[in-house]
Amino acid sequence: MRQHKLALCKEHYLEWMPEQTERFIKKYDMFTHYEKILVAVSGGKDSLGLWDILVRLGYQADGLYLGLGIDEGINYSHESRRLAQKFADEHNLKLHIVDIEKEYGQPIPVLAEKSHRGYGKPCAVCGLAKRHEMNRVARDLGYDVLATGHNLDDEAAVLFGNTLSWASEFLLRQGPVLPSSDGLARKVKPLCRFYEREMTAYCMLRGIEYIYEECPFAEGSQSIYYKELLNQLETARPGAKLTFYLRFLEARKTGDLFIEQNIEQAHLHLCPKCRQPTSTDDLCSFCRMIEKVNATA
Amino acid sequence: MRQHKLALCKEHYLEWMPEQTERFIKKYDMFTHYEKILVAVSGGKDSLGLWDILVRLGYQADGLYLGLGIDEGINYSHESRRLAQKFADEHNLKLHIVDIEKEYGQPIPVLAEKSHRGYGKPCAVCGLAKRHEMNRVARDLGYDVLATGHNLDDEAAVLFGNTLSWASEFLLRQGPVLPSSDGLARKVKPLCRFYEREMTAYCMLRGIEYIYEECPFAEGSQSIYYKELLNQLETARPGAKLTFYLRFLEARKTGDLFIEQNIEQAHLHLCPKCRQPTSTDDLCSFCRMIEKVNATA
Repeated sequence: MRQHKLALCKEHYLEWMPEQTERFIKKYDMFTHYEKILVAVSGGKDSLGLWDILVRLGYQADGLYLGLGIDEGINYSHESRRLAQKFADEHNLKLHIVDIEKEYGQPIPVLAEKSHRGYGKPCAVCGLAKRHEMNRVARDLGYDVLATGHNLDDEAAVLFGNTLSWASEFLLRQGPVLPSSDGLARKVKPLCRFYEREMTAYCMLRGIEYIYEECPFAEGSQSIYYKELLNQLETARPGAKLTFYLRFLEARKTGDLFIEQNIEQAHLHLCPKCRQPTSTDDLCSFCRMIEKVNATA
Repeated sequence: MRQHKLALCKEHYLEWMPEQTERFIKKYDMFTHYEKILVAVSGGKDSLGLWDILVRLGYQADGLYLGLGIDEGINYSHESRRLAQKFADEHNLKLHIVDIEKEYGQPIPVLAEKSHRGYGKPCAVCGLAKRHEMNRVARDLGYDVLATGHNLDDEAAVLFGNTLSWASEFLLRQGPVLPSSDGLARKVKPLCRFYEREMTAYCMLRGIEYIYEECPFAEGSQSIYYKELLNQLETARPGAKLTFYLRFLEARKTGDLFIEQNIEQAHLHLCPKCRQPTSTDDLCSFCRMIEKVNATA
């Protein structure tokens, strides 16, 4: 790991990763051993690696798999679900499964098409649905915390995109912890300081079988483009990605660059259908999208 | 100009550039027709183009050429001085010339070597000397404003570097205008919204002869690396560079992202030797550097 000037053997690497994760959890006040954690599990290396680490650290962590109904000729959802279930079974862990098609009548690509959101790609609808369902399940099943597997590459790419357009609202919110509010579970990203390749190495060394493919719809996406640019930068200067992300968090904390985030969410009220908070006057975006799809059906 | 979705013929292009410059000068309150402007002229396309535009707009703009004594086998300083002088003569303009070697005993590369600043490259010493001399000449000759030819590519690259490390102090200061303070002339960058290639086109169409070579010491510099990365981004998305810079200025202005800059400069006092303001307790960095070089001579 050039950014840390550190090289470890298998045994020590597999100790180092949970130790580091525990440090980040404490540093950013993510959660305690007394809280119930719901890990969003996609079947990929990051989320399975995260679940594995949290369980090894003794946290109460169950999984949530969202069946999106994405096939695209590679059986993407089916295969990712199989691997998530396999991991849960082998480790004797509880995995909640929500199938979007069963819940809402259509898989993600059809919801996206019928609702005409997102310029021909289902990614916007998929993000909306995932956020909605994670919040719903965490609330309905009484979890305190929602943990996602976002790694440093993910976080740096999002930060890079928000920085290129100086998107104030997002820049003032982005971080490893999004506090709970209006009945929504706290959201945390315990892997936010690990490089993607560190997660790959962890899963390989732990023998965790995960889905190698990215979601087929991710191809050509903005975030992948930003990741490539940041990888160039990282190659030229090892550690650049980590510095970019950590100095940003530091600047946010010290208050000598950014204003304080306006903590009060602007007049949120509860969606009359799903009872999740929303900034719109009526139905939340997700319920509106579902209504629209049903109206055209 | 893909970023503006605009294509102009020669005649209109040569009208459009000064019109735009005038807009920027007014928008950012750079200077008026009653003020005396000193243009820092390097012999390159940006500074000669700037001088040409300001004179065409009827501003009182004289030039300042700093002889740095850089040869590096391509006669760099000699040639750039010749072209600056040629432009001044042809347009009947006043060009002040300061030769660093004559003023301080050594050319820039020797000052850099003897003062052991800047890790084998003279760029740090060169920047220090240029700032010092521009301030000195502007004050001694009673200019109100110092204008430099920084274009959008320059400004975006600096912003990019400062953003990658979230350098608060620089991010809160960077902009098209640095107000005058403690007897220093105001500094302005009237070309900050023009792409480098727009300046090249302007000089070619105006028949301005300029030095094509970059300073030989600039090769492999950080800012050139950032420019290349930003050029990649610009190729993928025309206008990205301009958006990055303009949204930054906007975010600074609206106050919904950044804190207000602390206007009071922290206890500046005057250097006992050159009488320019400095944050150090004794001699300013430039005079200290010169003293050090003389002590080792």
